[in-house]
Amino acid sequence: MFLCDIGNTSYHFLHNENDYKEDTKTFDPSTIKEKVFYICVNPHAKKVLKELENWIDLSWHVDISKYYPTMGIDRIIACESIENGIIIDAGSAITVDMVKEGIFEGGFIYPGLCAMKQTYTNISSALDYPFNFELDLDKMPKNSADAISYGYLKTLHCEVMSKSMKLFLTGGDAKKFASIFPHAKIDETLIFKGMKKIMKKADLC
Amino acid sequence: MFLCDIGNTSYHFLHNENDYKEDTKTFDPSTIKEKVFYICVNPHAKKVLKELENWIDLSWHVDISKYYPTMGIDRIIACESIENGIIIDAGSAITVDMVKEGIFEGGFIYPGLCAMKQTYTNISSALDYPFNFELDLDKMPKNSADAISYGYLKTLHCEVMSKSMKLFLTGGDAKKFASIFPHAKIDETLIFKGMKKIMKKADLC
Repeated sequence: MFLCDIGNTSYHFLHNENDYKEDTKTFDPSTIKEKVFYICVNPHAKKVLKELENWIDLSWHVDISKYYPTMGIDRIIACESIENGIIIDAGSAITVDMVKEGIFEGGFIYPGLCAMKQTYTNISSALDYPFNFELDLDKMPKNSADAISYGYLKTLHCEVMSKSMKLFLTGGDAKKFASIFPHAKIDETLIFKGMKKIMKKADLC
Repeated sequence: MFLCDIGNTSYHFLHNENDYKEDTKTFDPSTIKEKVFYICVNPHAKKVLKELENWIDLSWHVDISKYYPTMGIDRIIACESIENGIIIDAGSAITVDMVKEGIFEGGFIYPGLCAMKQTYTNISSALDYPFNFELDLDKMPKNSADAISYGYLKTLHCEVMSKSMKLFLTGGDAKKFASIFPHAKIDETLIFKGMKKIMKKADLC
């Protein structure tokens, strides 16, 4: 049995406790003959997978009434994986979602690392610096590189920390953000925990 | 006598207590024969103005050792205009600078309204919403439009408010940001106050 979380750039698999990724551009899902339980936010992959009988869309088994209509199924499943805390999913966008006693309490969307880097460069070539994840978050900066790093990282940090909740870091850039959220639990396979929980509830495993 | 703050898109003049703007692309500074005291962050305009005797660059009269080398002269002059507080200059970038007892205590740079709108749209067309400046900043959102508005505005708000200082709002988008910083003093001509202060110190008026 496989679990798979499909985004815009990759198929993220879990198989026998090993996770690995395949590129959405090159991977052919019909090559897998075993049962695959999946969630998918990629419109093209969605169409292809509908035709494959061994690929089972888990989104049908989630009570989405607790969430909002345009919320991505990946965010919803991640929220299902925890009882209390804030999930920071650092990908092309950074989604920040809050769960209290198993109830989704809202969330927000912040630009991901690459997108924000490009934003500063587009405003002015004078702001074309890499982000400094080691900057001192307790001190207003006095140089350009830290001035943009602080603008990007400290604002997010301030809002997240103001909630005083347990933090879960997931997504492709989770490790980078760990340096500004040192007490967060890094779990790059959080989504699979949510999927397993859904499967258990729906008697699928 | 004219005062002029020159940015990348406009010449911002103050003349007899009236302020107005001229487009950098079309305005010819040699058409003004009176004395003009100016500051300029626009490299092209800088070159042109060097040749005009009645245009006097005020940046020579500022003690820039209190600031950092790559800091824009417009930010420096705005800081010179106050003794205590935080200046939020909302333009193509949003600069946030802190001054305590007349001393610059650091600052950061956040993307401006247009730049950040484009950032979300570039990440996904599903995030192409206008920002909602009327959103409830005390509640994590449960819809996509507010999820990006909160991501952009609340993070900035949280960091700025954490300093518990008097706020000054300036720049082209000052009025929009006033709805999330209702106690800020809006002053779109703050920069001219700083310029006048420098001129007084340097005995230029």
